[in-house]
Amino acid sequence: MPSIKDVANIAGVAVGTVSRVINNSGSVKPETRRKVEKAIQELNYFPNEVARNFKMRKSKMVALLLPSIWHPFFSELAYYIEDELDREGFKLMLCNSGGKPEKELYYLDMLRQNKVAGIVGITYNDIENSVSNDIPIVSIDRHFNKKITCVTSDNYEGGRLALRELVKAGAQKPAFMGSVTSVFSETMNRRKGFIHEAQTLGVDYVIYEKPDPIVDDDAYFNEFLNEHRDVDGIFAITDMLAASYIERARREGIRVPEDVKVIGYDGIQDHPYFHPILSTIRQPVEEMARMTIRLLYKKIEGETLDQQVYRLPVVFKQGETT
Amino acid sequence: MPSIKDVANIAGVAVGTVSRVINNSGSVKPETRRKVEKAIQELNYFPNEVARNFKMRKSKMVALLLPSIWHPFFSELAYYIEDELDREGFKLMLCNSGGKPEKELYYLDMLRQNKVAGIVGITYNDIENSVSNDIPIVSIDRHFNKKITCVTSDNYEGGRLALRELVKAGAQKPAFMGSVTSVFSETMNRRKGFIHEAQTLGVDYVIYEKPDPIVDDDAYFNEFLNEHRDVDGIFAITDMLAASYIERARREGIRVPEDVKVIGYDGIQDHPYFHPILSTIRQPVEEMARMTIRLLYKKIEGETLDQQVYRLPVVFKQGETT
Repeated sequence: MPSIKDVANIAGVAVGTVSRVINNSGSVKPETRRKVEKAIQELNYFPNEVARNFKMRKSKMVALLLPSIWHPFFSELAYYIEDELDREGFKLMLCNSGGKPEKELYYLDMLRQNKVAGIVGITYNDIENSVSNDIPIVSIDRHFNKKITCVTSDNYEGGRLALRELVKAGAQKPAFMGSVTSVFSETMNRRKGFIHEAQTLGVDYVIYEKPDPIVDDDAYFNEFLNEHRDVDGIFAITDMLAASYIERARREGIRVPEDVKVIGYDGIQDHPYFHPILSTIRQPVEEMARMTIRLLYKKIEGETLDQQVYRLPVVFKQGETT
Repeated sequence: MPSIKDVANIAGVAVGTVSRVINNSGSVKPETRRKVEKAIQELNYFPNEVARNFKMRKSKMVALLLPSIWHPFFSELAYYIEDELDREGFKLMLCNSGGKPEKELYYLDMLRQNKVAGIVGITYNDIENSVSNDIPIVSIDRHFNKKITCVTSDNYEGGRLALRELVKAGAQKPAFMGSVTSVFSETMNRRKGFIHEAQTLGVDYVIYEKPDPIVDDDAYFNEFLNEHRDVDGIFAITDMLAASYIERARREGIRVPEDVKVIGYDGIQDHPYFHPILSTIRQPVEEMARMTIRLLYKKIEGETLDQQVYRLPVVFKQGETT
């Protein structure tokens, strides 16, 4: 772990100068500042707790890394995150990082340079080696090995609930339908809960998964529809996947919910104008957003949190598909 | 118009010091910086062209003011705006300003203090008196009196197109359905185009409008449904309004498109999974977003633009409602 002395040595300046740059607390010539920032970057240096906290109070900017703001679940989340930040006068920087780890690494660099006070990350990129729990970062749905604070809905209970609701609606051979990311994600617990509950109830079930992202939708659904004709209930890992399945099933003459009951996950439909209204496991988006920001504030202040993963309860929302 | 000298006088510093603060170009003691910033704010001072451009090149941040990122049209727009900014290494700050003019004024202040390089604003708040065309701001859909650059879809042609498509689908008494904001908005041209085309074709038509925002949906639709039973075609000012009407009409036993043809505006449905798929006037969202940012760059560089309003062509997208 590089120290402030290492930075000073490489930049060819005094430790006090590095400190002034980090804390933005005194006059520093632009050229000197640049040298110090370059050294900080080269060494991958993070200021120590005290120095960082001192500075962090100055930056009132939080970066939000999302796969895509265009997705309704993420845009709802972003809405509440911005609202919660605004209460304390913090500003939001938005980054669509889908499939672009270099964009996420750039924001980690900004954090290192104290240009942002913290990061909220919904990342599916593999940036594991670039983060540590010392820095003010809170993840949503993505559970890092390195003990990064994570806020998520109770995916495991959501999976159990979905299985129970499918059975209650009459399904005798329910399937879990999803995609698997290369890195561990909290969303994988949806499948675990589903399997646990099926085994507990002694229900025959199917697990259908392909690597994420699904590039060929046709192949994905055709294989499922061909190989699992006897499935009469589906728990799709997201609402979008559920909706996509329903549309394809319809073209094959499969009726939902008459022939197959379908439950999604997310609860993205906030208007009852478009059909089918999905039966779904609703994530408490607003609560997740507000809790994420409140935990981030604590990390910015240097507090140690008592948990690594914060799971918020989900509810089943009855729609037209079960 | 206050000058840099006025700022220096009020702050009790030399003009060169004010310049260094504005341009972030040399050492300035934090306390002095604060005095200068306070004076700039008090005087509502904008640095002159040259000084501003010099500085602007340093800030790589653009603020996006949206009524709400949660709305699908705005989240699509934000997605492309962030993408276009990213190409030049600019970062996006996001602000949900719906009904909160003070939030928008705050960002104008940040612009004044050179903390952001420019602003993209979809504002329905009345901040007219706080903006001028000298500053790097581009509006979307909102046409200020003060000659602020505005990028919009061709609302007028969209209105004409909608009327023609309703008539083509068989409507004999089409209605325009909307809400009116207190400040002029480009979207008002949707109604104008609709009326123009109806008069040109000699078609009998209805204009149904209430003040924006519509607070009582029930009252809004009930009055329409009671008073305009003979209407057999509707051009709704947004897709959401179209969808909302269709759901209410269905409950009244009115079938769409059999009894009433409906056309919306926006083109927010990007997946064919939810029904009805609206017939709509599709805004070229991606092109609007990219053009907005390219124009903003020009304003940041101090270029004079040749137009005030940039209108991009719309297309009719056939759905299930005509």
